[in-house]
Amino acid sequence: MKKTKKISLTEISKPLQAELTAFNLHFKEALKSKVPLVDLVTKYLLRQKGKKIRPLLVMLSAQICGGINERSFRGATLVEMLHTATLIHDDVVDEAKERRGLPSINAVWKNKVAVLMGDYLLSRGLMLAVESEDFDFLRVITASVKRMSEGELRQIHKTRKLDIDEKSYFQIISDKTASLISTCCEIGARSATDDENKIKALVDYGENLGIAFQIKDDILDYKGKSKITGKPLGGDIKEKKITLPLIHALSLADEKERQSIIKKIKKSTRGNNLQDILNFVDKYEGIEFSYKVAEEYAGKAKEALSIFEPETRTSLELLTDFVLLRNK
Amino acid sequence: MKKTKKISLTEISKPLQAELTAFNLHFKEALKSKVPLVDLVTKYLLRQKGKKIRPLLVMLSAQICGGINERSFRGATLVEMLHTATLIHDDVVDEAKERRGLPSINAVWKNKVAVLMGDYLLSRGLMLAVESEDFDFLRVITASVKRMSEGELRQIHKTRKLDIDEKSYFQIISDKTASLISTCCEIGARSATDDENKIKALVDYGENLGIAFQIKDDILDYKGKSKITGKPLGGDIKEKKITLPLIHALSLADEKERQSIIKKIKKSTRGNNLQDILNFVDKYEGIEFSYKVAEEYAGKAKEALSIFEPETRTSLELLTDFVLLRNK
Repeated sequence: MKKTKKISLTEISKPLQAELTAFNLHFKEALKSKVPLVDLVTKYLLRQKGKKIRPLLVMLSAQICGGINERSFRGATLVEMLHTATLIHDDVVDEAKERRGLPSINAVWKNKVAVLMGDYLLSRGLMLAVESEDFDFLRVITASVKRMSEGELRQIHKTRKLDIDEKSYFQIISDKTASLISTCCEIGARSATDDENKIKALVDYGENLGIAFQIKDDILDYKGKSKITGKPLGGDIKEKKITLPLIHALSLADEKERQSIIKKIKKSTRGNNLQDILNFVDKYEGIEFSYKVAEEYAGKAKEALSIFEPETRTSLELLTDFVLLRNK
Repeated sequence: MKKTKKISLTEISKPLQAELTAFNLHFKEALKSKVPLVDLVTKYLLRQKGKKIRPLLVMLSAQICGGINERSFRGATLVEMLHTATLIHDDVVDEAKERRGLPSINAVWKNKVAVLMGDYLLSRGLMLAVESEDFDFLRVITASVKRMSEGELRQIHKTRKLDIDEKSYFQIISDKTASLISTCCEIGARSATDDENKIKALVDYGENLGIAFQIKDDILDYKGKSKITGKPLGGDIKEKKITLPLIHALSLADEKERQSIIKKIKKSTRGNNLQDILNFVDKYEGIEFSYKVAEEYAGKAKEALSIFEPETRTSLELLTDFVLLRNK
């Protein structure tokens, strides 16, 4: 893994400072509610500072296609809302106690409120899309939400059977992660242009970026620093989520070793055998392999941008590098 | 409470037998998925036989407005899907182990799958609405899903503070129940006519019917037979949901008695004090009062139909009576 200079999101966002501030106001406004409990929870949500990569992608995609406008803001607001909804549900599902350095919604208000707040944000987000009266927009969004839940459900299915190969892995991460990232790019593009070539280029960019993003996420589960990522090391293994580093190692091991590792994964719920599994992945260079694959997808993402003028691509290219190099 | 002759849903549905069979096929088809776990769960869902009041309302509303067509089927399918999604999430939220005589989704597949399946059905339902390319349709649906979660969240808020009066109660049940019932009527009507008077009449009918429906539901919690309703008697009290029968009794009691009952409700989680609270409601005729209010709303629902020819109203009128007289 070669080291490159550090890239920060702040650096990438700098040229869009005014627009992102406007987006934050937009988002805050859209979250307001007359229902006191909803208002209380959304105010809390605003304190959980996320990376806001998705709204940034909407903005950058709009910019490269002609310029940011009211529809781009609306699009950014609605994807961030849908993303927030899925995170809240994810935390219920994973019984996560923390999110972005603060206690999770389910930790503070219990599962009941968390499930309903997710539903509320999901429908509120889709209402914004309806208000925009753009069917292409809506089609993309609803299909994406559907794919996200399908991807998660496919992963649970595979996880329970401990039966996963590279093909299923890529299908799962494409559905559960790349679909929304790609939707961000598509929505940003559509808010600024009708040119289907440009839109398609950004959809491709987003799909490949999303896959690179998820592989990197899965690598961080093996190699990240808990203090920085905010998640325990090997969390996926404990949940029996078999991701690319382990899939690769399993594909290279002989049947006997394979079976022995599978047995260890089955018993890994409380963290037993964790070190053995990590050593096994190291032995077959599962991380290095995965990083190379992520780099390939990042490369494809950049290639998809080739129809745009080189000087306009800088921010999206930097964001691609950031996705690979980030440590959380 | 006067006794009238028994009305069954089968009787009301009889004239629409062919259409309801077609709807069932439509619904089954729409639930199919390439994701094995999704397909497994939806097949299970089809075995949980619900009352299917909502699709029936779509059909009857379409019929009275001119006739059932492809769009009515699509509308019926999508409301039943959204309703199913909210039931699945409700069961997670209430930790319910049974639904419609079978173990609940969370009981069989755990919360994780239940939360995601709810999200899947929600987005799948909304995708159907998007495919219909009708903004009025979509506006109604997304607003309704939002109101449902808002109503539930408002109820939780009030429940936690044990602070609820008639006004809040009606706002809550209008949002959490009447909104979708009214949406069913609106969608059915819109699938068959452009006449805004007819559409408005059915929206009013649905809103009033929905309120009557929820009051009756709340009465069944006090007076129903557990074996028939499938829910434990006094379940709402245990969850500290203060509904109309109790609100009425509390409004008539003096401050001292009121405080003593509030104290008992606070301690009622495991069913202690349940009999005292039921006696208190009886003393102030909370059930009788609530039934009278439900009858008033049912009356308003029927009145809303007055713009239609009398001979076309029979089924919707019968359905209104059924909502009041049902014992589950």
